[in-house]
Amino acid sequence: MTFEAPIKDMLFNVKHLSGWTEVNDLPPYGTLDLDDVDAVLSELGRFCAEQVAPLNAPGDEVGSRFENGKVVLPAGFDAAYAQFVDMGWQSLPHPEAFGGQGLPRVVGAAATEILNAANMSFALCPLLTDGAIEALLTEGSAETKATYLANLISGKWTGTMNLTEPQAGSDLALLRSRADRQKDGSYQITGTKIFITYGEHDMSENTIHLVLARTADAPAGVKGISLFLVPKFMVNPDGTLGARNAVRCQSIEHKLGIKASPTAVLEFEGATGILIGEENAGLGYMFKMMNAARYAVGLQGVAVAERATQQALAYAKDRIQGRPVDGSSHEAVAIVNHPDVRRLLARMRALTEGSRAMAAFTAGWQDLALHGETPEARAEAVAVHEFLVPLVKGYCTEMSIEVASAGVQVHGGMGFIEETGAAQHYRDARILPIYEGTTAIQANDLIGRKTLRDGGATAQRLAMMIEQTEQDLHQGSPTAQSIAAQLSQSRAAFLTVVDHMLESGRSDPNAAFSGGVPYLMLAGNLIAGWQLARSVVAAEKAITAGDDPSFMKAKIATARFYADHVLPETQVQRDRIVKGASSLLDLVF
Amino acid sequence: MTFEAPIKDMLFNVKHLSGWTEVNDLPPYGTLDLDDVDAVLSELGRFCAEQVAPLNAPGDEVGSRFENGKVVLPAGFDAAYAQFVDMGWQSLPHPEAFGGQGLPRVVGAAATEILNAANMSFALCPLLTDGAIEALLTEGSAETKATYLANLISGKWTGTMNLTEPQAGSDLALLRSRADRQKDGSYQITGTKIFITYGEHDMSENTIHLVLARTADAPAGVKGISLFLVPKFMVNPDGTLGARNAVRCQSIEHKLGIKASPTAVLEFEGATGILIGEENAGLGYMFKMMNAARYAVGLQGVAVAERATQQALAYAKDRIQGRPVDGSSHEAVAIVNHPDVRRLLARMRALTEGSRAMAAFTAGWQDLALHGETPEARAEAVAVHEFLVPLVKGYCTEMSIEVASAGVQVHGGMGFIEETGAAQHYRDARILPIYEGTTAIQANDLIGRKTLRDGGATAQRLAMMIEQTEQDLHQGSPTAQSIAAQLSQSRAAFLTVVDHMLESGRSDPNAAFSGGVPYLMLAGNLIAGWQLARSVVAAEKAITAGDDPSFMKAKIATARFYADHVLPETQVQRDRIVKGASSLLDLVF
Repeated sequence: MTFEAPIKDMLFNVKHLSGWTEVNDLPPYGTLDLDDVDAVLSELGRFCAEQVAPLNAPGDEVGSRFENGKVVLPAGFDAAYAQFVDMGWQSLPHPEAFGGQGLPRVVGAAATEILNAANMSFALCPLLTDGAIEALLTEGSAETKATYLANLISGKWTGTMNLTEPQAGSDLALLRSRADRQKDGSYQITGTKIFITYGEHDMSENTIHLVLARTADAPAGVKGISLFLVPKFMVNPDGTLGARNAVRCQSIEHKLGIKASPTAVLEFEGATGILIGEENAGLGYMFKMMNAARYAVGLQGVAVAERATQQALAYAKDRIQGRPVDGSSHEAVAIVNHPDVRRLLARMRALTEGSRAMAAFTAGWQDLALHGETPEARAEAVAVHEFLVPLVKGYCTEMSIEVASAGVQVHGGMGFIEETGAAQHYRDARILPIYEGTTAIQANDLIGRKTLRDGGATAQRLAMMIEQTEQDLHQGSPTAQSIAAQLSQSRAAFLTVVDHMLESGRSDPNAAFSGGVPYLMLAGNLIAGWQLARSVVAAEKAITAGDDPSFMKAKIATARFYADHVLPETQVQRDRIVKGASSLLDLVF
Repeated sequence: MTFEAPIKDMLFNVKHLSGWTEVNDLPPYGTLDLDDVDAVLSELGRFCAEQVAPLNAPGDEVGSRFENGKVVLPAGFDAAYAQFVDMGWQSLPHPEAFGGQGLPRVVGAAATEILNAANMSFALCPLLTDGAIEALLTEGSAETKATYLANLISGKWTGTMNLTEPQAGSDLALLRSRADRQKDGSYQITGTKIFITYGEHDMSENTIHLVLARTADAPAGVKGISLFLVPKFMVNPDGTLGARNAVRCQSIEHKLGIKASPTAVLEFEGATGILIGEENAGLGYMFKMMNAARYAVGLQGVAVAERATQQALAYAKDRIQGRPVDGSSHEAVAIVNHPDVRRLLARMRALTEGSRAMAAFTAGWQDLALHGETPEARAEAVAVHEFLVPLVKGYCTEMSIEVASAGVQVHGGMGFIEETGAAQHYRDARILPIYEGTTAIQANDLIGRKTLRDGGATAQRLAMMIEQTEQDLHQGSPTAQSIAAQLSQSRAAFLTVVDHMLESGRSDPNAAFSGGVPYLMLAGNLIAGWQLARSVVAAEKAITAGDDPSFMKAKIATARFYADHVLPETQVQRDRIVKGASSLLDLVF
């Protein structure tokens, strides 16, 4: 169960799909060339392969434990985290003004995938810290930034997101936690929060909780939610740690997967909190944080799929069983030679590379959204980026379950034995389409905020870009042309569905939203397939130039498989959405 | 987490899909009417709901343990099994000549589903005993039958199947276990067998192992495999138990699911075995046993899907979260009202009912195959039944993973918490497409033995029956007619694929077999959809007759959803198979 970071594929994506030239031209970037990116990611890959990945299976086996009010992480987590911080990995994509390295998001995305592929349970801690950093960067006061950011960005302190309460999961309107204003301007926070990832642990000196709560006079529903910063240990004016705050871990959950990651029930018992931004505006802030976290969860999907694929492929090359169906040998051969094992592995590879490609493309738009030269350029990039986020979250996580399940299947009976390790990915992946907003929540976002709000403009803009790729493919090989044909059909299906949503989204919302997840899966499938199609354009040029032809040929083969076997699913999804609503809604439960 | 056996749906299937009138006319049947079947299944349903289902979650939590050379089953298993035996449930479908109740397979299938839905880990023991009974009934000598059958059929003794060895999983040609002929006509069996379900336990007085092994002079490969009966305790001539045989449990596995079911490593250390049938003919015997077991595993898929669906629906009706998308309420409502939760539940219900319907249809053919009046009628029924078995095994188990996964998703974050119980189904279901032959093995069987061998005759015969149903539907409502249209397209896709297999199966086996699982899934989808379509014909007549209109309307709604949302997947599968082989096989691993 060794792990090797897929650096070559990542560099290909950064170079050819993320708009690297344009991104790296943006201030504050431009300090790295692609060789530097290679060096950074390779160094992280080595660290993860040597220090983090080996903790994955043992961490799953023992899990985090809750003993005497304390969370005990699996052996080795503390030391690996200390090294992670020492090497500066937490700071990679964050601003230099607060001690970060200021690398583009397109590099940060690859780094997040590598860490998560090595050990998703471990990687969740830095992932949540990233979310806290994001919130403070955009909404924190100068004082809050000065006090908390540097230590979060270095990884010395870690962050959490406290949204969920027992009665308020997807529905934050039902939130009850209370915030009472104090004379000194601080707040006393009281309430129970559940499902708090790394809500309690001793791996870092301090934990900075970001907490949603209501002030006494807040309006009802989501318009009365405020965001507070609640440190585990109070921070003195000189930056040293003070008294322990009144937030207590009550228990941790017994989960299906990501068992090494402690999922805490936190009791806030009049804990001291600092208001972030304005009162009653917390939901909007949380959404910014969530957008970053949702994208990162999509990367977790890519990561677990990559790990499952590597493991299944290694097993398939090693396991001798059965003679070839074509009679080419009278001896048993490695199962990788059997057509259905190849089918499973092909699907695993295609879904993984397609999802990674979509995520890389999306990261490029995020860099443009953050640092585009003009407000117009930024606004345009924001629209595209925000359209893509629910697709990355929804599609990459749903596909990760399929890939992990196929990974178990490749192993046969051995896959069902926990010691083999394939089953862990199947268990771990199952949380991904749930946390940070279920796939249905992503689909609601895709329909409501991302499609209806701008009258389908961003969707249509993406379709025009896809059409451009089809034209590029038509200049290429017969394979490229056949991919263009598949892409064209899927683009047409997408546009049909976009029109359908624009027509029915407001007039018949039950019908429209019953097609929400199919729409998300169709769009995710299309965008992932499109990025692989763009890869073909780049790979055919690279082959002509003599650049790594064996890698480029493999990329083309994967894209072709995706076009023939995965893209056509868009047709079924279109029919479900456009023709299937009444047969769905007529069912009585 | 209560469980209620879906008796109404089962009786509907027995009456309308299994050819009940024809089946019940066959000697030795005809002793029951449908009210009796209702009474039998309802009684089993009560027993399972009260005694067996409550052991499911606790059994999963503690699992079977291996202590001091003994397997300790979870608390309550012994007592429930004793009651299961007392009530005579093991004997239900077995011949009256050996103490069985001789009920038709169409009733036995429903009973198997009920027991497995209540507790798959518990039900595995009787399921394996059924397999041993099947083998002895068809291949046992008169003496073997006299000594072993009555106690197996009563459930007083249990049975196991010993095929797998560490180096021989799907590939039995690699089997190494040795059988040395003794002077008294018995054999000494030596070797290691793994993955032996209920290979060791004290729930029954004796365990009868059926073991594949090679004699010293056996031909290499699968033509040199013999089948032996190896009792845990030797049986004296007077039927009392003698000395312990030299078979020893070495350990049990730590598995992803079905944790209460002990999966043993068995060491045969010169154990005394009795040859079943002829030497070197063991593989054929094992296949008979396997066919029964494979069908039963398909029922396990239906069972776990039913249980997951019941649990998800109950949660969805209970959990209050989010306002309706159509603005019909300003308060949060039960999530069952949200369109995507309805979509998930609709898909769960449709896949479950469709799979159950296919299984019921298949059981009817098994009864005809066993007891048809003429050799011709039996041969014809055997062909149809054997065509359907890999579909039941493959399709019902693959769909059970999707259903169980959707069940977790309906629960949101709570689904990932083990105490909720939804995750257990997701873990349990994962073994089903693996054991008793992976889906790929089923697909190989479907192509090779079931399609190529008779030149597609059985496949085409089924297609003609489907066409008849389309004609029946055209006499019905507009809904029935629209279902006929979907069915017709899927039938056409099936026939295209059958032709493709007939053309390429021998000339280009790699290409053909790379489409094997897609072919199986296409055919399973079609047959399940067809049975739901037949249900519509019956339900529309029943509504006219005033017979339980609310049940009948629900059945029609489910069939319509299946036709609009599930059947169209056959089109994508057809294209993958017919057009997609080269893009699959071109991938290099």
